[in-house]
Amino acid sequence: MRNMYDAVIVGGGPAGLSAAIYLGRAKYKVLVVEKEKIGGQIAITSDVANYPGIKQISGAELTDEMYAQAIKFGVEFVDAEVKELTLEQQIKKMDTTKGSYQALSVILATGANPRKIGFIGEEKFQGHGVSYCATCDGEFFSGRDVFVIGGGFAAVEESIFLTKYAKSVTILVRKNSFSCAGTVVDELKKYPKITVKFNTELVLAGGNQTISYVAFKNNKTGETWRYDVAGQGGLGVFVFAGYIPNTALFADTINLNQQGYVITDANQKTNLDGVYAAGDVCIKNLRQIVTAVSDGAVAATALDTYISTMHDKLNLSGVSQIKKVENKSKKRMKIKWYKKRMMI
Amino acid sequence: MRNMYDAVIVGGGPAGLSAAIYLGRAKYKVLVVEKEKIGGQIAITSDVANYPGIKQISGAELTDEMYAQAIKFGVEFVDAEVKELTLEQQIKKMDTTKGSYQALSVILATGANPRKIGFIGEEKFQGHGVSYCATCDGEFFSGRDVFVIGGGFAAVEESIFLTKYAKSVTILVRKNSFSCAGTVVDELKKYPKITVKFNTELVLAGGNQTISYVAFKNNKTGETWRYDVAGQGGLGVFVFAGYIPNTALFADTINLNQQGYVITDANQKTNLDGVYAAGDVCIKNLRQIVTAVSDGAVAATALDTYISTMHDKLNLSGVSQIKKVENKSKKRMKIKWYKKRMMI
Repeated sequence: MRNMYDAVIVGGGPAGLSAAIYLGRAKYKVLVVEKEKIGGQIAITSDVANYPGIKQISGAELTDEMYAQAIKFGVEFVDAEVKELTLEQQIKKMDTTKGSYQALSVILATGANPRKIGFIGEEKFQGHGVSYCATCDGEFFSGRDVFVIGGGFAAVEESIFLTKYAKSVTILVRKNSFSCAGTVVDELKKYPKITVKFNTELVLAGGNQTISYVAFKNNKTGETWRYDVAGQGGLGVFVFAGYIPNTALFADTINLNQQGYVITDANQKTNLDGVYAAGDVCIKNLRQIVTAVSDGAVAATALDTYISTMHDKLNLSGVSQIKKVENKSKKRMKIKWYKKRMMI
Repeated sequence: MRNMYDAVIVGGGPAGLSAAIYLGRAKYKVLVVEKEKIGGQIAITSDVANYPGIKQISGAELTDEMYAQAIKFGVEFVDAEVKELTLEQQIKKMDTTKGSYQALSVILATGANPRKIGFIGEEKFQGHGVSYCATCDGEFFSGRDVFVIGGGFAAVEESIFLTKYAKSVTILVRKNSFSCAGTVVDELKKYPKITVKFNTELVLAGGNQTISYVAFKNNKTGETWRYDVAGQGGLGVFVFAGYIPNTALFADTINLNQQGYVITDANQKTNLDGVYAAGDVCIKNLRQIVTAVSDGAVAATALDTYISTMHDKLNLSGVSQIKKVENKSKKRMKIKWYKKRMMI
């Protein structure tokens, strides 16, 4: 049973890492499968200032710490992509690009990705000028010019929030009106810092370390123009075009809500026994590191009882039956991950 | 309006501090009222090993960090006891031992206290041998003898959890049987490490830095005896005698469940507008630092919209109307708090 685990966690962001820390500390044999960088969405964030207990840290450093903490508790990691998940049976199965695994339980912590616009520079400046979260990053643009892309409720609400910090907030709406209720839009009038431009798209963000200029296009007239930052410090581009929860792997068996987020109970349990979900992939009002790590801990603690029961049921005598891999191979994995990290 | 705040947070544990960090960063004028040590329950915990992102830290250090983070965002603190809370009106009012305050909103983060048994040494060894949470502290007693006090479901379940770490687990039940379902109790038989003693009370824990001996009494026969630790490292006493949520201040106006915990919606809102609750005082399946800080962030973010609306309604033009105290007095407060901390 070399590839048999008490729990496999799909996704190595804060939710998955927190679940791993709790389950590892509870002495279970745990595997985290992550296809990209450990840390998920947050790994590309340069500054995190609102994680309670840590004044300022990069997203990568914070999740490196969580990763090291999980390693300390004996959690195993594999950088592989899950190709297929079979969740309905007592023994869950998964095929990955690095082999097959079995587990008594699965935590789905696959996250959600903000919808990208596709303008030139969007990728390059992500975490360094391009942001998808005003609560997370608004403060870093204190006294600067900020452009908001979006025409829905989120764009309006977050623009108002950004006036706390920004020198100016310009909302770029692709269509010729907002898509949310008029009363919400009326609110904007109270904020002299806010300007709205309809039929306008941001097509390019340029600069060196920070965004020093942006280019726009009026999609009705075809007119293009450019805005150059005055003085020190780059400008900010906030994109509010919705999120896409990463559920392709299990959308056929796990109950999702209309927006595609996983439905769980208060213990983070999905509709299937032994299958839990945590973090941004779940229905929630606030997608932040704090809420993700909370989900992970809740799921892990609830799973403790479930895994014990399964051990009895399947005549696995306690944790001992499912042996942890020897230290040597764990060490190897660890070094590999850190190597990967240094290339970011 | 010197004593008028956007939000007053009652309780300076992880939930309250997290809410303070989020609201302070959102530029609101925020006051945290704490009657004892900043940090709440966790401040008396010597080691925290499962807060994701921080490998090992004392509870006091962790909450000191959160406190400093809140101070950085302009949050004010007062070490006072709230004597009276008036929550039903738009403007919330509170009388404290250090004067009266008004606020547009209140976050109740008053926590819950584990029920104490009252044996000699219970207070002295709290956080250094006496624990009220197996998930938090079980690991620290790896390879040691552990005594569990309690006869309910929690005592049984946590005793099983403690077998992961402890050399032996002895459950002390005051009555002559467990108070939970027989099927739960039957589970105990599967764990050879566990011994159960009925009609037995722990009356004393003694030692220097750690607990090196404990004394018992059979409450039927009156017989007393003592157990001395063999070898290095102290033994552990885990008490599972229930929790008491701290709701005396608002039990007449805020809806509580049968166990006395605050009922909130998914945004942490209570039954009253502008009154939110966060942390251990709320209904929840897992009482941990991670779940507390998550609650605090959720409550603070939900309040953001509420406070903005109230500013409009009451013709307070933005945040500017409610001015933050000048830096000088903030600095004074900070020094004071730190001084207090050093005496712990």
